[in-house]
Amino acid sequence: MKQLKGILPPITTPFIKGELSIEKLEFNISKWNSTSLSGYVVMGSNGESVLLTRDEKLKLIEAAKKFASEEKLLIAGTGSDSIKETINLTNDSAKLGVDYALVLTPSFYKSEMKHEAFVKYFSLVADSTDIPIIIYNVPKFTGVDIETETVLELSKHQNIAGIKNSTENIRQIIEFVSKTKNEFNVLVGTASMLYSGFTSGAVGGIVALANIAPKETVQIHEFVNQGNLIDALSLQQKMIPINKAVTSKFGVAGLKAAMDLLGYYGGDPRVPLAPLNELNKNILINILKDSGLLNN
Amino acid sequence: MKQLKGILPPITTPFIKGELSIEKLEFNISKWNSTSLSGYVVMGSNGESVLLTRDEKLKLIEAAKKFASEEKLLIAGTGSDSIKETINLTNDSAKLGVDYALVLTPSFYKSEMKHEAFVKYFSLVADSTDIPIIIYNVPKFTGVDIETETVLELSKHQNIAGIKNSTENIRQIIEFVSKTKNEFNVLVGTASMLYSGFTSGAVGGIVALANIAPKETVQIHEFVNQGNLIDALSLQQKMIPINKAVTSKFGVAGLKAAMDLLGYYGGDPRVPLAPLNELNKNILINILKDSGLLNN
Amino acid sequence: MKQLKGILPPITTPFIKGELSIEKLEFNISKWNSTSLSGYVVMGSNGESVLLTRDEKLKLIEAAKKFASEEKLLIAGTGSDSIKETINLTNDSAKLGVDYALVLTPSFYKSEMKHEAFVKYFSLVADSTDIPIIIYNVPKFTGVDIETETVLELSKHQNIAGIKNSTENIRQIIEFVSKTKNEFNVLVGTASMLYSGFTSGAVGGIVALANIAPKETVQIHEFVNQGNLIDALSLQQKMIPINKAVTSKFGVAGLKAAMDLLGYYGGDPRVPLAPLNELNKNILINILKDSGLLNN
Amino acid sequence: MKQLKGILPPITTPFIKGELSIEKLEFNISKWNSTSLSGYVVMGSNGESVLLTRDEKLKLIEAAKKFASEEKLLIAGTGSDSIKETINLTNDSAKLGVDYALVLTPSFYKSEMKHEAFVKYFSLVADSTDIPIIIYNVPKFTGVDIETETVLELSKHQNIAGIKNSTENIRQIIEFVSKTKNEFNVLVGTASMLYSGFTSGAVGGIVALANIAPKETVQIHEFVNQGNLIDALSLQQKMIPINKAVTSKFGVAGLKAAMDLLGYYGGDPRVPLAPLNELNKNILINILKDSGLLNN
Repeated sequence: MKQLKGILPPITTPFIKGELSIEKLEFNISKWNSTSLSGYVVMGSNGESVLLTRDEKLKLIEAAKKFASEEKLLIAGTGSDSIKETINLTNDSAKLGVDYALVLTPSFYKSEMKHEAFVKYFSLVADSTDIPIIIYNVPKFTGVDIETETVLELSKHQNIAGIKNSTENIRQIIEFVSKTKNEFNVLVGTASMLYSGFTSGAVGGIVALANIAPKETVQIHEFVNQGNLIDALSLQQKMIPINKAVTSKFGVAGLKAAMDLLGYYGGDPRVPLAPLNELNKNILINILKDSGLLNN
Repeated sequence: MKQLKGILPPITTPFIKGELSIEKLEFNISKWNSTSLSGYVVMGSNGESVLLTRDEKLKLIEAAKKFASEEKLLIAGTGSDSIKETINLTNDSAKLGVDYALVLTPSFYKSEMKHEAFVKYFSLVADSTDIPIIIYNVPKFTGVDIETETVLELSKHQNIAGIKNSTENIRQIIEFVSKTKNEFNVLVGTASMLYSGFTSGAVGGIVALANIAPKETVQIHEFVNQGNLIDALSLQQKMIPINKAVTSKFGVAGLKAAMDLLGYYGGDPRVPLAPLNELNKNILINILKDSGLLNN
Repeated sequence: MKQLKGILPPITTPFIKGELSIEKLEFNISKWNSTSLSGYVVMGSNGESVLLTRDEKLKLIEAAKKFASEEKLLIAGTGSDSIKETINLTNDSAKLGVDYALVLTPSFYKSEMKHEAFVKYFSLVADSTDIPIIIYNVPKFTGVDIETETVLELSKHQNIAGIKNSTENIRQIIEFVSKTKNEFNVLVGTASMLYSGFTSGAVGGIVALANIAPKETVQIHEFVNQGNLIDALSLQQKMIPINKAVTSKFGVAGLKAAMDLLGYYGGDPRVPLAPLNELNKNILINILKDSGLLNN
Repeated sequence: MKQLKGILPPITTPFIKGELSIEKLEFNISKWNSTSLSGYVVMGSNGESVLLTRDEKLKLIEAAKKFASEEKLLIAGTGSDSIKETINLTNDSAKLGVDYALVLTPSFYKSEMKHEAFVKYFSLVADSTDIPIIIYNVPKFTGVDIETETVLELSKHQNIAGIKNSTENIRQIIEFVSKTKNEFNVLVGTASMLYSGFTSGAVGGIVALANIAPKETVQIHEFVNQGNLIDALSLQQKMIPINKAVTSKFGVAGLKAAMDLLGYYGGDPRVPLAPLNELNKNILINILKDSGLLNN
């Protein structure tokens, strides 16, 4: 089993005229293969997973597996509110060579998605999946938030390998790390949390920014591992504005536009998401230049 | 084309030990067939649609079509964030005899789900579906809310037949009615809105309470149509506590427990939803007695 | 005791260069005196109450009392989280001739502001005030919402005369009316709720729009009283866009700009509120024209 | 001018039968005087500031000044939506010997409280106060959140000394530190943020937990200053459950109950806040024992 740690981009899904482009996927993965990224997450939030059909998802996984170099982890987002469907998709993904499944918290019946429901959901899923699962907590998309006691309870399940926590709340990370056993892996879910997460015991990050800044995101991790907090914090500070631009500010469209500007294939997001307009593209260019990712 | 109006229950999906029970579905529909309900909505929020697999959904539609008496409308909830998948499921439903598709607003990328995205999403879906669609706005589950100008814009599409608006905001209903043309049908989405909706021009309601109180919900409509506002309001007042119990207070579990108490088959909701505990069941019984639905 | 019913504007507070203008207050009140408004609310949310000092508040009340014609009700907003201060200000207001105090729900400690806290707060205030109080529920400003059972409990206090409910949730109004005794007065808090509120048993409205459309807001009430629902609804529909403009869309600045356009004195709101910019003023003018309040 | 840094408790306001007890205040401050706390904040959120009259506030400041040892900083919460009133109260506080005023973001007109309004508000206040002000951002109470660009802009004002940021979002702290000049002091606002805040450049913390754990909160700061991250993180982890208990879980009532248990005077909070019930008091005792603050 490959170890769950380090920096992994939730890779964008390349479309040409709205259709999946396996060729462009190969182009991007080839570039990332030469970096120190630990692996790839397909069908995460930045992969526009909810805009794909089931067939497209499997095609995407198959291709990613083919193009990723051997040492890279492959994780697939397979969660939905339906336990049956989540298990099915996870096991179909496992057959294609996926190492871990990233499973979103169920969220439709928001007021009922609390401790008991989460424990039941993730336990039942993990009981029946052929690969370990990672809990995916992302309140800004789901409208629900998982509590520490729930994570503690679920961390005892031997087929639940960790959590990707996509908030900027560092208290959660500290609690998840301190309350769970060593084999349970806490990963941050946004690049603004790398420095604080690593200095608090997180072992990795699945972060959108790694799509365009694999070197810098890995570097923050290494600086912290070396005990070089000054450079780690300084690089973290530099990454925050661009991280904001490709997440909360401009979303997937911003991330894809940045990829196009930095030598990857970004392309347009799928409808109903809209591509970045010219005004926002210029703002993005300036932010990329300020951060040093794009040459002046 | 059957007219979209009157009272329709978003029918619950019957499970026995977690598996779809077509037999129990027949039992419930047989009972409803003898009422003045206009038809049935399968795979709505109260139908636990998000907890079903695609195969189960189609099986459910097929059965509902078979059991529903000829004059009843059949509507199916077919929406998801993916436009492709929404069109596919809608057209597969149409082949099975569904009259209208109820299409949830896309909602995963909440901050981007505004006017432009909604217009694009619903227009593209409606362009390609073999049956007319109904916009389904339910902020408490989706975390997004549709604006009047968006509804106005979409109402011009000839394959968009109306909107089910599941809020208690009467201003929205008044605006939707006054801004759209006559052929665009505005339906309320919760039974607390029947009286105010009908006195404001709404033509129907898709309301959970109709599962257990078909007579009363239809009666409110008829009272308003007869200009008998006093009795309409009085009946509306009586229905509010029980409506609250089977929606915001106890959710699908409460609705199913009430069905069991009133001679329908309710059963347990599917995991991760939990059945009503004894304490809450007793509260529910008292509310049902107070409302007159259950004999003392 | 003057009866609490009919239409009352929460009157704007006129400033010249940031300072209270008693002269402009007189100008506005003189105009309103000739209408069928039931009275005036000073120091409501639209009166920028939270931006005034205590001395300014008393000065404002004194002036309003002086200028209001004898038959008009005078209500003052006197609530704050401090029970002591609320009682003090209410009793000082009473000495100046105020008929009722409008008391905002306490809201600072949001997570604790539930049934028990509200019951204690309003009971203690009402126990010690020389005039009856009106509960003021306005979640968009306070972030808290009062429940029906709380209103029911408080309605039994003989010094609590009613509630102003500033949401667009008609279910609340129906419940408040049906659960409380006849002497407890339910008033809607926004002009979009006049038609639905009056057809549900509300006896009045304290609504921003009445500052600029006293005739129309009163007319909706009269139409409903006459059983003329068609004209009532039609006028209600016409008022919704302009009501939106002077509340949720442009706030106090929009209301004041509309007053300036319609022959009242509006002026600028106090800092930190900003006056309407030119672009928005033009949008406002068009909305006023469309609604018929401003001649083309 | 005393330097704004280190750990300061927002001290609770002692009441006996609902009335201010200066004697109990002296008792508490005497105990805190012998610790390494940098000073005291009176009339913060934990001081139940919004439940006090203006006279009580001044009386409280006067007493705190009298009892605090000379080297301790004295900060008073003086902010309200009214700029005039905020300036008045700040300057009256200054006359009584307060060093800095903690000024809450205005928040009543939530949808308008954005960059421009905040810049105008804080600039106008700071222009006219005789002592420097500290911005106080606490979204859980105000419902509004300040943006980095606003803090950057305000940090240039020479009479704005810093910000107390009461969220658990570490990205904000990193941004505030990196974007503002050295003389602008960033303080965390809750004890769960001490470790991460100090490792990110924050210079202090105004945290409820310091009322009952002055030694431990100061110790985390010192550990970080010594470069001893392991012990700092370990102590931080230990403090999180008790910090939760005296803030989000049980609020001011919990903090006061913990004070009573640990040798300080806590007493009951003022109505409408309710004291801790027995059940919750037992939960609190267990949490205090687990954290080592209370002997087993």
